[in-house]
Amino acid sequence: MSGESFQEDALLAHIHATVPGAAHVLVGPGDDMALIRFGGGELLAAKDLLVEGRHFLPSASMAQIGRKAVTRNISDVAAMAARPVAILAACVLPRSITQAQAQELVDAISQTAAHFGAPLIGGDTCVHVGNGPLTISVTVLAQPLDGVKPILRGGAQAGDQLFVTGALGGSLAKDGGGHHFTFMPRLAESHALAKLLGTNLHAMMDLSDGLARDGARFAQASALQAVIIAEQLPSTTACVKAHTQANAWQGALGDGEDYELLFAVAAGVQMPATIGPNNTPITRIGWLQALPTSAAQALICFHNQHVVDVSQLGLWHNA
Amino acid sequence: MSGESFQEDALLAHIHATVPGAAHVLVGPGDDMALIRFGGGELLAAKDLLVEGRHFLPSASMAQIGRKAVTRNISDVAAMAARPVAILAACVLPRSITQAQAQELVDAISQTAAHFGAPLIGGDTCVHVGNGPLTISVTVLAQPLDGVKPILRGGAQAGDQLFVTGALGGSLAKDGGGHHFTFMPRLAESHALAKLLGTNLHAMMDLSDGLARDGARFAQASALQAVIIAEQLPSTTACVKAHTQANAWQGALGDGEDYELLFAVAAGVQMPATIGPNNTPITRIGWLQALPTSAAQALICFHNQHVVDVSQLGLWHNA
Repeated sequence: MSGESFQEDALLAHIHATVPGAAHVLVGPGDDMALIRFGGGELLAAKDLLVEGRHFLPSASMAQIGRKAVTRNISDVAAMAARPVAILAACVLPRSITQAQAQELVDAISQTAAHFGAPLIGGDTCVHVGNGPLTISVTVLAQPLDGVKPILRGGAQAGDQLFVTGALGGSLAKDGGGHHFTFMPRLAESHALAKLLGTNLHAMMDLSDGLARDGARFAQASALQAVIIAEQLPSTTACVKAHTQANAWQGALGDGEDYELLFAVAAGVQMPATIGPNNTPITRIGWLQALPTSAAQALICFHNQHVVDVSQLGLWHNA
Repeated sequence: MSGESFQEDALLAHIHATVPGAAHVLVGPGDDMALIRFGGGELLAAKDLLVEGRHFLPSASMAQIGRKAVTRNISDVAAMAARPVAILAACVLPRSITQAQAQELVDAISQTAAHFGAPLIGGDTCVHVGNGPLTISVTVLAQPLDGVKPILRGGAQAGDQLFVTGALGGSLAKDGGGHHFTFMPRLAESHALAKLLGTNLHAMMDLSDGLARDGARFAQASALQAVIIAEQLPSTTACVKAHTQANAWQGALGDGEDYELLFAVAAGVQMPATIGPNNTPITRIGWLQALPTSAAQALICFHNQHVVDVSQLGLWHNA
């Protein structure tokens, strides 16, 4: 993830420390979406990048790339339990692109966006002057569900139960294909959770960089420690195939690109086995607790009743 | 602007022809900003790209690049006579970037955004896996001024007077520097024009690709023909220096990166010589008229009382 002398995490810390606040900004950089006061209500916005080599291989089809550029933004909307209303897309195209490929790309963007009720309303395109990878940035705009406050990352409490939707791992196949091109953002599940749980749904995020890394960020946002039980992690068939049954928990923690929801539920709340119109499984994978010391790791994982170090697991560490 | 077999204009035409509408989308792709119904009011959004080699040279400083990434979006807000409220920024960084350079870039983005009342609220960053140019996409969100409907491109009428703010040409110095890094978006001028003219301000856009190209788009948006009088074009000192006094009009039409406003005012309305808190000059440069035939050029230019072909002038034709 880094050049010779550059650390992305240090840049993000710099941004969080230096970006000035404003009266109308309720949530700035650092959550799945920003939240601002707008007109008489609230507006959510997020912006992601999709870059060849980083988020897909050159072998991917334009239809796959365009779909993913939108669905990973819709996944951010799901993480806030909000409703998408529009997207904008900017594409920097390689010099070798054909008219048919460019049209396939924007058609996939436009059609995927329309499917989620968030029509493509604007953007920009240009062609690289020299060599350069296909680069797409999608911005998604959203609004709160009626009667539902957006669910932030930082609202968790010590004692909360930790859940995930669906199953984890194996999203990126060795050939560059896999579930990361076909996943359905957990929008319906998110809305159903928010309505079912009300104020007992304390915090939520979507998993893109792997549970080991994202789970640590999730706990940090509430200044807590996440405890994960490896044996409870739900893993996909592709994950088991790639890692073996015995090691599938490592894939669930580290493979990344899951686009499942990680969420914190108040202690003691009984949860159903599935959620939403498609009966999507939800699984309790651990809990949140107070940090034992200020220097403690934000995420610890038990495997065979022993704490194992999973801090080196995670998509971007493999890059 | 194009690869071997790719035409950007054809892609834009494809987008305009195929993107589905939606009840809440009042203005979709094709204007300076999109306009949607949101909450009880209206929301404007635009998204631009800034790519090394295309919009700046590698010699540019991170402070220059970050400033320009924001100001060209604020110029889009000016073109709608709207008020900026927030920005999001996505940056794909070259592998050679240093921590200090990355911080200088985001500081310039954040500080410029805050200056215009549009704080940086979110975004994304990543580093190229291989070689690739510094690429920035900024999204700007805006809302209508109190009591002022956003000014679209397509509201002009035959007989309207055509004006520009400031002076044109010479924005890109031969060494890659120049006014395109230092221009002040015409936000205050735009608001003053909207308040002064009310419904007599029929249409407006900002000039980025040069008056020859953008003026044709402007006329097309209202299915009219723009008539430009070369001798009336205001040109910058840098433009005169680059093109000579006799040929400065060609620079004013073709150099691009002006970020001045082009606007259509109802026939017969008397205009002041300057507008806004900084007494920015405004100049009548021609008028709009009905297309003599459906195949006629959208923009014609008179020089020495003769029509001259300026269709080959324009920033991107030089690329």
